[in-house]
Amino acid sequence: MLKVGLIGAGRIGKVHAAAITRHSGSELAGVADAIEDNAAALAAEYKTSMMSTEEILSNADISAVLIASSTDTHCDLIEAAAAAGKAILCEKPVDLSLQRAKACLSRVADCNVPVMMGFNRRFDPNFAALQSAVAAGEVGQSELLSITSLDPAPPPVEYIKVSGGLFRDMMIHDFDMANFVMGGLPATVSAVGSCMVDPAIGQEGDVDTAVATLTYTDGRIAVIKNSRRAAYGYDQRLELFGSKGMLRVENVNENTVVKATADGINSARPMHFFLERYMPAYAIEWAAFVEAVESGGQVPVTLADGVAALAMAEAATQSAHSAQPVSINDLL
Amino acid sequence: MLKVGLIGAGRIGKVHAAAITRHSGSELAGVADAIEDNAAALAAEYKTSMMSTEEILSNADISAVLIASSTDTHCDLIEAAAAAGKAILCEKPVDLSLQRAKACLSRVADCNVPVMMGFNRRFDPNFAALQSAVAAGEVGQSELLSITSLDPAPPPVEYIKVSGGLFRDMMIHDFDMANFVMGGLPATVSAVGSCMVDPAIGQEGDVDTAVATLTYTDGRIAVIKNSRRAAYGYDQRLELFGSKGMLRVENVNENTVVKATADGINSARPMHFFLERYMPAYAIEWAAFVEAVESGGQVPVTLADGVAALAMAEAATQSAHSAQPVSINDLL
Amino acid sequence: MLKVGLIGAGRIGKVHAAAITRHSGSELAGVADAIEDNAAALAAEYKTSMMSTEEILSNADISAVLIASSTDTHCDLIEAAAAAGKAILCEKPVDLSLQRAKACLSRVADCNVPVMMGFNRRFDPNFAALQSAVAAGEVGQSELLSITSLDPAPPPVEYIKVSGGLFRDMMIHDFDMANFVMGGLPATVSAVGSCMVDPAIGQEGDVDTAVATLTYTDGRIAVIKNSRRAAYGYDQRLELFGSKGMLRVENVNENTVVKATADGINSARPMHFFLERYMPAYAIEWAAFVEAVESGGQVPVTLADGVAALAMAEAATQSAHSAQPVSINDLL
Amino acid sequence: MLKVGLIGAGRIGKVHAAAITRHSGSELAGVADAIEDNAAALAAEYKTSMMSTEEILSNADISAVLIASSTDTHCDLIEAAAAAGKAILCEKPVDLSLQRAKACLSRVADCNVPVMMGFNRRFDPNFAALQSAVAAGEVGQSELLSITSLDPAPPPVEYIKVSGGLFRDMMIHDFDMANFVMGGLPATVSAVGSCMVDPAIGQEGDVDTAVATLTYTDGRIAVIKNSRRAAYGYDQRLELFGSKGMLRVENVNENTVVKATADGINSARPMHFFLERYMPAYAIEWAAFVEAVESGGQVPVTLADGVAALAMAEAATQSAHSAQPVSINDLL
Repeated sequence: MLKVGLIGAGRIGKVHAAAITRHSGSELAGVADAIEDNAAALAAEYKTSMMSTEEILSNADISAVLIASSTDTHCDLIEAAAAAGKAILCEKPVDLSLQRAKACLSRVADCNVPVMMGFNRRFDPNFAALQSAVAAGEVGQSELLSITSLDPAPPPVEYIKVSGGLFRDMMIHDFDMANFVMGGLPATVSAVGSCMVDPAIGQEGDVDTAVATLTYTDGRIAVIKNSRRAAYGYDQRLELFGSKGMLRVENVNENTVVKATADGINSARPMHFFLERYMPAYAIEWAAFVEAVESGGQVPVTLADGVAALAMAEAATQSAHSAQPVSINDLL
Repeated sequence: MLKVGLIGAGRIGKVHAAAITRHSGSELAGVADAIEDNAAALAAEYKTSMMSTEEILSNADISAVLIASSTDTHCDLIEAAAAAGKAILCEKPVDLSLQRAKACLSRVADCNVPVMMGFNRRFDPNFAALQSAVAAGEVGQSELLSITSLDPAPPPVEYIKVSGGLFRDMMIHDFDMANFVMGGLPATVSAVGSCMVDPAIGQEGDVDTAVATLTYTDGRIAVIKNSRRAAYGYDQRLELFGSKGMLRVENVNENTVVKATADGINSARPMHFFLERYMPAYAIEWAAFVEAVESGGQVPVTLADGVAALAMAEAATQSAHSAQPVSINDLL
Repeated sequence: MLKVGLIGAGRIGKVHAAAITRHSGSELAGVADAIEDNAAALAAEYKTSMMSTEEILSNADISAVLIASSTDTHCDLIEAAAAAGKAILCEKPVDLSLQRAKACLSRVADCNVPVMMGFNRRFDPNFAALQSAVAAGEVGQSELLSITSLDPAPPPVEYIKVSGGLFRDMMIHDFDMANFVMGGLPATVSAVGSCMVDPAIGQEGDVDTAVATLTYTDGRIAVIKNSRRAAYGYDQRLELFGSKGMLRVENVNENTVVKATADGINSARPMHFFLERYMPAYAIEWAAFVEAVESGGQVPVTLADGVAALAMAEAATQSAHSAQPVSINDLL
Repeated sequence: MLKVGLIGAGRIGKVHAAAITRHSGSELAGVADAIEDNAAALAAEYKTSMMSTEEILSNADISAVLIASSTDTHCDLIEAAAAAGKAILCEKPVDLSLQRAKACLSRVADCNVPVMMGFNRRFDPNFAALQSAVAAGEVGQSELLSITSLDPAPPPVEYIKVSGGLFRDMMIHDFDMANFVMGGLPATVSAVGSCMVDPAIGQEGDVDTAVATLTYTDGRIAVIKNSRRAAYGYDQRLELFGSKGMLRVENVNENTVVKATADGINSARPMHFFLERYMPAYAIEWAAFVEAVESGGQVPVTLADGVAALAMAEAATQSAHSAQPVSINDLL
C-alpha cells in the first residue's frame, strides 16, 4: 500500500485525492495546502490528516507525494521531496521559467527517485490508444500531425497574468502530446498568435488564439491549433497522417443522443472541460504512477518530458514575437 | 443503340427520359401520355417525337418501352408491349390487384421478352453495395433484417384514395428490398398499422404508420417500419444482422457541413425525398436494363419479383385487418 | 448515512457494493450470500461484515437492502425485507412466474416501504436524456418506437435453462425501456422468435433471435429486436419517431479513435457488454434510490413496473408460441 | 443559347465538355487541342466540330471559350480570347509565373469580357454551404481556419517537373479556398515543406508534405495542410472556428454502408479523387459561368482571384526556402 501525501488541496488536488483513494494500492496519508482550511476540508472528506508540507516530507511512512500546488512552488517541492526520497507525481508545468526547470532537472538527477509529470492527456484512453496504434505502425511511417485544442471559455484575466502565457499554460499540453505521439522532440518551433477572444488578454500581452508549427529533422511536420474559446465545448482532437493512413481521436461527447428534426440532425456537444473529459485519465495516470513506483520501473512521463514541453513553449513564445522559427536545441 | 418509347410523361417519366437520353447506348425515340400536352412538352424538350401508345408499340424501330403511366394501365401495357415483342421496363407496382398481376405474369410468360420492374432502390449504390456484401458473406449468415423507411410528408388524400393503401403503395418498396437482401421470399407476413399522421388518411380506411414482421422458413426474421411523415426528411435505412456482424445503410444527407455551437453539433438532414435520394439509382437502373437487353441476359428485377412484392403487400394489408400472420404461399 | 445490507455477492452484487460504497450518503453495512465464501470475500474487500440474510433483515441499524441474489429468491426476500421495514432495491426480474410476482406486489402493497426494481438502463445517461427529451415534447407526439438490443454472445446453456427464456431474461429490459419511453403499457404484444445462434438454445425450447411488436390503444407502435449474439459487441440503441422528428440513442463505443486506411474508415466497437456500458448507470441508479429513500419520495422504478415488464415478457412468450397477439390487460 | 469553344480535350476538358453539353443554356460548338486526335475524338463524342484555336477565336457564333489546355498556354489564350471578345472560363492556375499572370491581368483589364477562373472547389455544394454560413455569421466572427487537403497518391515525376511545385500546383486550391472562406487575402504566408512520400519528388527540388500558416491584419489565422498521399483516399476537409462556434466540411464518402464486425465499425472511404468528389462542382461552376455571362453579372471567381492565389503560392514557395514569413503585399 503506497502511502501518499498530497500537497495542494485546490480543484486539481481534489481530483487527485479521489484517484489516490479509489486506487486499491494507494492511500491518502495526509493533505497539505497553503490555505489551511482547504487542507482541513479535504482531509476531513477523506478521513485523513491535515499536515504541513514539512510534516509530509519528513514522515517516514509516506513514500510518495503528489504536488498539486501553485506552479511557482513546483521546483522547490520537487527538489525537497526528491531529497527526502519520496516518489513524486507533479502537476504540469514544471515551472514558468525554463532555466529554473532545467536547474531542477539537474538537481534531482542524482536523487534516484521516480519523478513523474502530470501530463494527464497521455492517459486519456483515446489518445493512449492512438499513440499505441501509431507506435505499432498501424498507419505506417508518421508524416504529419495535427492537434486541435480549444478551451470552452477563457480564464479570468487574473489567471492569465500569472499563467506564463498561452504557450506555457495551455499549448504546453499539446507540445507534450506531440512529443508523445511523435516519439521525440521537434527541431524547430514556429508560432503565431493573436488576441481574438478577449481584449483584456491582449492588454496583458498574451494571445488567445494561436498556431504552432513544429518541424522534425526527418521531415515530419506537426501543427497545433489553440483557442481559449470554443462555444460548443472543450475541443480536443488529434490527427496523425502516416504513409499507410490516418489515425484520429475525436471528441468525447456528453451523450449519444441524436435529435433529427426539420432543423437538421443534432448531437451532443463535447464534454465541457478537462475535469469532465479527462476524469478517467486522472485515475489511469495515478495507476500508472503507482505501478511504476511499486515495480521500480520507469515512470511513463518524466521530469525531462516536462522540461522538453516547457522548452517548446518557450520557443513558441519567442517565435510568436520574432516571427522566426526557434531551434529547440538552442534552448535545451 | 436501343431505341426506346416512353409511355407516361409525368414526374417519374421525366426522370426516365433524362436517364434514357444520357445513356450512350439508348435513345428516346418517342413519348406518349394520356395527356397530350405532357407528351408534347417532354418530346420537345428532348427533341423527339410525341407518339400515341399504339404508335410506339407498332413502331418497328422501337425495341424497348418504358412504362411510367398510371398504375391501372401497367398490366395492359405490359401485355401489349410483350405481344409486340418489346423489351419492357415498368414502374412499380405491377397492379393494385394481386390477381390481375398474376394473370399478367402468366400471360407474358411465353412472350420471351425481357420484362423488368422498376424497383429503383435496388440500384441505389448504398443498398446495392450492402446486398453485395451480404451475398458475399461479409457478415456471415443473415439472421435479422430491419428496414426503416419514412417519407418526409404524407401525400394528398386524393393520392391516398387511389394508392391501394400504404402496404401496396409505400411498403411495397421495402418488401422488394427485403426480397433483394434476403435473397428470397418470407414464409409469413404480419403487420400492424395505425393512423397517427393525418386523420384524413384514416377516414379513407388507410394507415400512415405501420410495422410489418416477416418470418422465413429457416428462422430468419425481418422487420419493416413505415411512416408517411418524417419531419427531418426521407429516412431510408437498413440493417442486416448476421452471424459475423452487421451491415447498415445510413441515409444520404444533403451535404457534409457540420455546425458546432452552444446548441450542439448540427449536421444536414437526409436528402428530401426519392427524386433527390434516388436520382443516381434511376440512371443505374436504366443502364442495367440496357445491359440486360443488349446482352440477352436476365433482367435484374423480374416481373415475378413485382408480383412477389405485391403478394407481400396484400398479405400485410390482410394481416393488419385480421391481426393474424398471413402465409405468402397461400397468395402465390 | 443510509446503512445497506447487500444480499447476493455475485457479479452484479459486486457492482452494487462498489456503488453503495462510493456514494457519500450510503454505507455497506453487511454482505450475505448463499455461498459463504463469496460473502466473506466481498465483505473483506469493503471492510464490512459478512452476515446471514436473517441478520441483515433483523439488524435495526440497516435500513435498506439490495437484493442481488438469484431470481427465484427475489419475491421471498422482497416480502421478508418489506415486512422488516427495509427500503428495497431488487435486481430484475421480480420472478419468472408472473403469478408469483403479482402475489408479491399484492403482499407488499401495505408495507409502506420503498421497493425499487433495478432496471438499470433507465439510468443510463443516454437513455435518460432521450426519455426526458421525449417527455418534453422535443419531437412532438410519439408515434413509433424501435429498440435494438443485442448481446455480444449467448450465455452458456446452463444459464439458458434457468433463465425463463429470452423474453423474460433479456427482452424484459427492453419491455421496461418501452414503458419508460412510451410512458405506459401497450395494449397488445406480438412476438416471433427463432434459434439462429446456438442450436443448444433451441434444444432447450428457447429462442435466441426475436422480434416483438407492441401496439398501444392510441395507435402508437413499438418494435423490439433481440439477438443473443452481435459479433461487434453489445448493441443497445433506440429510436423514437414523433410528429416533429426523431430521437435516437447511439451505442457507446470503446474509444473515439478512427483509423482511415486503404481498407476504409474504422472506428471502435460498442463497449463489450452491460458491465462496461452500464457501469455509470448503476451508480446513478443507486443515487436515485438513496435520494428517494432519504427524501421519502417515490422510487423511480416501482415493483409494479417490474410486474408490468414481466407481464409483457409472458405475453411475448405466449405470442411466440401461438402466433397471436396477446392482450396485456388479460395478464394483469 | 451560349455557344462555347473548348480549348483542351484532355482529362479535365472532357469533364467540361460534359458540363457544357448537359447545361440547357449552353452548347459545345467546337473543340480544339494541341493533339488533333484528342480534339477529333471528343468532338465526335459530342457530335460537334473539331476546330483550331484560331477558328474558335475567330468564329463569330462562339461567344465563350473554356480554356482547359496546358498551364503554359493559359495567359496567351486568355489574352487572345479577351481580345476576341469572348467570355472566358480558364482552368487554374493562371500561370506558374506570378509576373506573367499579373501582366495578363493588366492586359485584359480593359477588354470588358468576363474572365472566370476555374477554382472548382468553391462550387462544391459542401464548401459553398459552409462559406454561405460563415458569411451569414452563423458562427459569429471568424477567428481560425484549418484546411486539410491530401491527394490520394502522388502524380508521376514527369508531372511534378512541370507543375511549378506543390504550392503552385496543389495548395493553390487551398489558398483560393482560404480567400473564399475568409473573404479576402492574408497579410503574410509562412510555409514549411518536406519530402516524405516519394524521394523522386525531392530530387526535383519539390516537396510532397507541407503546411502553410496565413496571418490576417485583423488577427485571424489560417492553416493549410497538404500531402500528396492519403492511403484512404482524397481528403478534403475544412474547419472554420468563429466566436460562436465552428463550421466544418467533412469528406464525401463512396457510400453510406457501415459494416460492424469483431474488427470494429467500418465505413466507406472518401471518394477517390477530384473527378469523383468534385464532379457535381464542375456542373455548378459551369452553370454559374453561364448565368454570369448571360446576365451580364460579375463572375464568381475572377482572374484577380487567380492571381491572388498564385501570389500566395509564390509566397509559400519563398517561405519554405527562407523560413521567413512572406508579405503578400510585397508580391502584388
